[in-house]
Amino acid sequence: MDTQDQNIHRLPTPPLNRILAPDSIAIIGASADPTKRGNKALQGLLNGGYQGEIYPINPKLEQILGLQCFKDVDSLPQPADLALICTPAYTVPEIIRQCGSKGIAGAIILASGFAEMGGSGSELESQLLKAAKDSGVRIIGPNTSGIFNLHKNLNLLALDSVSAGEIGIISQSGNMLLSLVLEAADNGHIGFSTYVGPGNQSDLGFSDYLQFLAEDPNTKVATFYVEGFTNGREFIDQARKVSLDKPVVVYKSGSTEAGQKAAASHTGSLAGSYQMTRDLLQQAGVTVVGQSDEILPVAEGLALMQQAKGNRVAILADGGGQATIATDRIAEAGLQIAKLSDHTKTQLTKLLFDQASVINPVDVAGSTDANPQLLSQCADILLQDSGVDMVFLVGMFGGYSLRFAKEMHQAEMQTASDLAELTRSQPKPLVVYSLYQPVKPEPLRLLRKQGVAVYSSIEQAVQIMVALAGRGRHIQKSALLEIPLPLAPDHASTELLQRAQDDDRHPYEHEAKQLLQNYRVDVPTQRFINQVSDLDNLPSTLCNQPLAMKVVSRDILHKSDAGGVRLNLQGSQDLKQGYDAIMDSCRTYQKDADIAGVIVTPMVAKGVEIIIGVSRDAIFGPVLMFGLGGIFVEILKDVAFRSIPVSRQDAWGMIDQIKARQILDGARGEQAIDKEALVELLLTTSRIIETHPEISELDLNPVIAYPTGYAIVDARIIADQPTTTAQEKIA
Amino acid sequence: MDTQDQNIHRLPTPPLNRILAPDSIAIIGASADPTKRGNKALQGLLNGGYQGEIYPINPKLEQILGLQCFKDVDSLPQPADLALICTPAYTVPEIIRQCGSKGIAGAIILASGFAEMGGSGSELESQLLKAAKDSGVRIIGPNTSGIFNLHKNLNLLALDSVSAGEIGIISQSGNMLLSLVLEAADNGHIGFSTYVGPGNQSDLGFSDYLQFLAEDPNTKVATFYVEGFTNGREFIDQARKVSLDKPVVVYKSGSTEAGQKAAASHTGSLAGSYQMTRDLLQQAGVTVVGQSDEILPVAEGLALMQQAKGNRVAILADGGGQATIATDRIAEAGLQIAKLSDHTKTQLTKLLFDQASVINPVDVAGSTDANPQLLSQCADILLQDSGVDMVFLVGMFGGYSLRFAKEMHQAEMQTASDLAELTRSQPKPLVVYSLYQPVKPEPLRLLRKQGVAVYSSIEQAVQIMVALAGRGRHIQKSALLEIPLPLAPDHASTELLQRAQDDDRHPYEHEAKQLLQNYRVDVPTQRFINQVSDLDNLPSTLCNQPLAMKVVSRDILHKSDAGGVRLNLQGSQDLKQGYDAIMDSCRTYQKDADIAGVIVTPMVAKGVEIIIGVSRDAIFGPVLMFGLGGIFVEILKDVAFRSIPVSRQDAWGMIDQIKARQILDGARGEQAIDKEALVELLLTTSRIIETHPEISELDLNPVIAYPTGYAIVDARIIADQPTTTAQEKIA
Repeated sequence: MDTQDQNIHRLPTPPLNRILAPDSIAIIGASADPTKRGNKALQGLLNGGYQGEIYPINPKLEQILGLQCFKDVDSLPQPADLALICTPAYTVPEIIRQCGSKGIAGAIILASGFAEMGGSGSELESQLLKAAKDSGVRIIGPNTSGIFNLHKNLNLLALDSVSAGEIGIISQSGNMLLSLVLEAADNGHIGFSTYVGPGNQSDLGFSDYLQFLAEDPNTKVATFYVEGFTNGREFIDQARKVSLDKPVVVYKSGSTEAGQKAAASHTGSLAGSYQMTRDLLQQAGVTVVGQSDEILPVAEGLALMQQAKGNRVAILADGGGQATIATDRIAEAGLQIAKLSDHTKTQLTKLLFDQASVINPVDVAGSTDANPQLLSQCADILLQDSGVDMVFLVGMFGGYSLRFAKEMHQAEMQTASDLAELTRSQPKPLVVYSLYQPVKPEPLRLLRKQGVAVYSSIEQAVQIMVALAGRGRHIQKSALLEIPLPLAPDHASTELLQRAQDDDRHPYEHEAKQLLQNYRVDVPTQRFINQVSDLDNLPSTLCNQPLAMKVVSRDILHKSDAGGVRLNLQGSQDLKQGYDAIMDSCRTYQKDADIAGVIVTPMVAKGVEIIIGVSRDAIFGPVLMFGLGGIFVEILKDVAFRSIPVSRQDAWGMIDQIKARQILDGARGEQAIDKEALVELLLTTSRIIETHPEISELDLNPVIAYPTGYAIVDARIIADQPTTTAQEKIA
Repeated sequence: MDTQDQNIHRLPTPPLNRILAPDSIAIIGASADPTKRGNKALQGLLNGGYQGEIYPINPKLEQILGLQCFKDVDSLPQPADLALICTPAYTVPEIIRQCGSKGIAGAIILASGFAEMGGSGSELESQLLKAAKDSGVRIIGPNTSGIFNLHKNLNLLALDSVSAGEIGIISQSGNMLLSLVLEAADNGHIGFSTYVGPGNQSDLGFSDYLQFLAEDPNTKVATFYVEGFTNGREFIDQARKVSLDKPVVVYKSGSTEAGQKAAASHTGSLAGSYQMTRDLLQQAGVTVVGQSDEILPVAEGLALMQQAKGNRVAILADGGGQATIATDRIAEAGLQIAKLSDHTKTQLTKLLFDQASVINPVDVAGSTDANPQLLSQCADILLQDSGVDMVFLVGMFGGYSLRFAKEMHQAEMQTASDLAELTRSQPKPLVVYSLYQPVKPEPLRLLRKQGVAVYSSIEQAVQIMVALAGRGRHIQKSALLEIPLPLAPDHASTELLQRAQDDDRHPYEHEAKQLLQNYRVDVPTQRFINQVSDLDNLPSTLCNQPLAMKVVSRDILHKSDAGGVRLNLQGSQDLKQGYDAIMDSCRTYQKDADIAGVIVTPMVAKGVEIIIGVSRDAIFGPVLMFGLGGIFVEILKDVAFRSIPVSRQDAWGMIDQIKARQILDGARGEQAIDKEALVELLLTTSRIIETHPEISELDLNPVIAYPTGYAIVDARIIADQPTTTAQEKIA
């Protein structure tokens, strides 16, 4: 695969490159005590073979570990690229200023006792940040475990057993890094490039580190363990660009309320909705991993194979049991069991025993027991089938010589070589599950060394294929991406919003609908009425049909509860009675309610109930939500989120994502609803939000969708900062 | 934990004990060729140190591997307990007869070429089975990989690297066994007791092997890899008894349609609905594992810890990241994050640093870095909290001396000892996840050796806790089990079924409802009418309200499609018009339809639509299904199954199991529906099916459930073997 070329861009932009791949480093608070961090870091640098300059700084010592020691930052012979600050929190702001004066580009602050402690810690962090801004020094941390860049032999964590490779890793948990390192060492993995513990992210944060990893030629996959985003919007904007060139993997903790509480007590991070976070990350092309034990396997798989052009998998098995399990997992994961061409089947039949199954899953049924080289020949045939996007080799390859006869070792090694050559000579992924992987026999080690992904769990291997296909689909979709431009601001709409704000209220329902209509959204005919006599002068479009009447009041939020809604009114008499009844009920419900009038609108026909909503998330900015109404949203939480602006592809993706999508396709003998119209409505909603930053929330709930078009039954806009009324405060 | 005593029953009943724990074994088709199975088995017995008698049988040899060889079965000096038959398929029936004459109890038949091949193979298998029945020899296989019983040093598979332990394993895939063995060897596990490859199960099958494992004192958990059950009913009946004393773990492949096809081509097994199979197994107390890489971890966890009395987990962590992940997984899995008592929190506070969190998850926040022994003290405190059912130790225990200082090794070993002592001295499970498990440091090896479960994946560890809590809950529920007796047969109902059968048709809707009413099920008033004039004489209970009228015809299966349903009829005129309209429509729909008449019944009020159904499954026998109607069944497949007879607990379990259960509790401002009434309806349905074996299907669809009671809108009974009409054959 030509991913090597794909991923070498220019060298990382300074100053991040200078900081994270430094040629010189000052250890401030260097120590002669081997248990202290200021000594361990030096040991790590020396043992790791760091080739840059090392400047220990300690006013009381001449030498540490054979290195000349400096009194203070100012005494350094040259400005170091990076400073590692091992001194207590209170000393840090002043040290940062000294670093700035000396021209040091960045500093890692290990000390805790900053914002994560609250109170005076937050105050200290403000001072730190001011010092950093004044002096131009960029900050990693504070409260970080440090960094490594193994391609520079720079290992400030003094971790043993971590080898240089292609996985870049940013982790908000030091233990999580350690866990991945130990897992990787055990698996004989492809190694790590750069690690950063972001700590409090007071200056540099996730999106900066993502940018570095994106530009770092030694990194093939950017991997994140995240407890909470601080600026999620910046991260997804960055990820959207990066993910087209390089896989980005995120494990986001706090998928449950209990987990969010635990994360908050650990890092002080705000969590936000997990489901929303996942949707927005995926929208940006990020591979979101749901299980912590899949982080490393998925990152490795993406580093090795980058992407698959489609989701059709051919299974090549030498045992029926595992073939079945693989088939179940692939189907459950939403991948396709590839339909093999007749040509492929004919070729396989020529190679294999009569009892072999050449229908996917291909089961060699003993054909390879004496000749494992048939496996690479079969894999070759399958990879050449244009209906196959990935090949999954399942079974005991690697253990043939252990299982059957020692003499087969050479043939098995040759097979491993041939399989590796297959992955190099064509772009389709080959993923290997071997039940012998726990004992790591030589053929499997050879495969791995030559860049073939080998897994000891069918379930994990399938997750890797899901990730490869997902990334491939995202890249293809992105090539066609159509993001409509923001709409030109409509003067009447701006005025309408302004008028509501001047009036110290949010727009009324009929105003919200009017605004939508101004932007060419299809809105049912409506008439705002504020005196009963106006009911005699309804436009002809509203006559001779059953009408709905709804109270319009800044104070009445739950119209139905207040008796503020009357349905199926027809004729002048009926309407007037309805008007009076609404006024009576609402006055009874709330004596002093400010009632502006009512709106009158046609009853809508039955259809499929839809909800569309917009909110401005504190972490991710404006977000669009789509779901089916009623129990689907309220009980099954079956909704999709996308960050605004949404592309046409995103809008279709939202509709395809919900579990109840079959209902939109016309389940139970109903006609399919008009998805195109909903896509247009989603796009226009997104564009309105871009055009009107003063709108903080917009809800179309419900929208009734039909085989042709839709009807917006209720619309609600919350605009910025009107003073809330007493009633709203109570509610 | 006192599981040791719990599990030692009497010794296994002969003849299964004689066959699977034999004191003497004949190898029929013993060979001098070391690549042949008839030689490998002998090597396996000799190398494994089998202490019983070994009788190689080969007419051409005097000796094999130093053992005296016998000409034929008849020449043996005594009847062997077991024969391993390594000869080709066609020779087997005759050999079985010889074994029977000699008094051999059982035979393992390795050869394939029987029923799995179809055609003449099936014929041969019939001959084999006849030989077995005639001669009294019990059969393992044919087409099996063999067996081992490691506590007898009997290893007919000649597998290396498998150690004796407490997991009994029955696997329809030899590769799956091999995979578990290699995984276990790598993990330093608790070992295996007995393995059987059931092969074609022509005689002995899953339920027999389950019985053996239940009675085998060396087995602490019975584990099954199943591609397809042949007699599922027998297995669940057996499992219901066994699971109260000993954990039973099943991985059932074919969870998807694609997987079922693959399994069918592998074993020829019928698959059946995966969801139904899972529900019925769980009803019988079986732990159903959904992922193949969780089979061994779950089996090990259950073997070591047997059960938990509840689902409240206390997490004890030395790192925030993993504490959060553990919390997420526990909450997602439906376990509870235990609420710690004030006493517990006070005691923890005394032991730990100020910054530690003593709210679950407990995060020691560095307190143990210099003193790991605090971990066992904290675990002790948590285990003593009556609000805690399990303790989950999460983090880097086992690696303290590697991470911090070599000097801590002794303290860490002591901690491991103390933790092990804690698990012995009280019954609550302690589950350990360590990120150092991949490198297997000494403290973790000590823990494992002393019977503490140590895992390298948080996700797997949580699955073990789910299994422990699930088994505990099942055992508690079983102690209270209330299975109502079958109903006394109602004479009128029996006659009604007989009348329909005499008439060569299934019961009509009104007859089905009458039958239900005969068994005191609440059925809406109904009147069967077969001439229009009878509409003048409706009972008073049907007058003065809107009525529904439905055609009654053996030929019209889809009443609405035929125009055979009229709703909201009121008054004599309306009813007569409705009657005529139905007759007209149905005649138009099908000219020659045999129309018996119509039923008239009140319109039912709105409520929650329920479906209850009974079918007689080919593999599992009579099965009851419960679900919410409409999209829930048709699109979301949100249904629950139980094998009949259902207990009261089962019926409640069905209602609690469905994902949309909130709707029954009164979502969206509605009142909760009458679950008690539904439970009674489910129980009565189950009892009717027991009373009337001639009923093969019963559908109540829909039933409308209300805050008080329910209304059965439609009922359908399919009784055994009426001749189908031409119309049905076409449909």
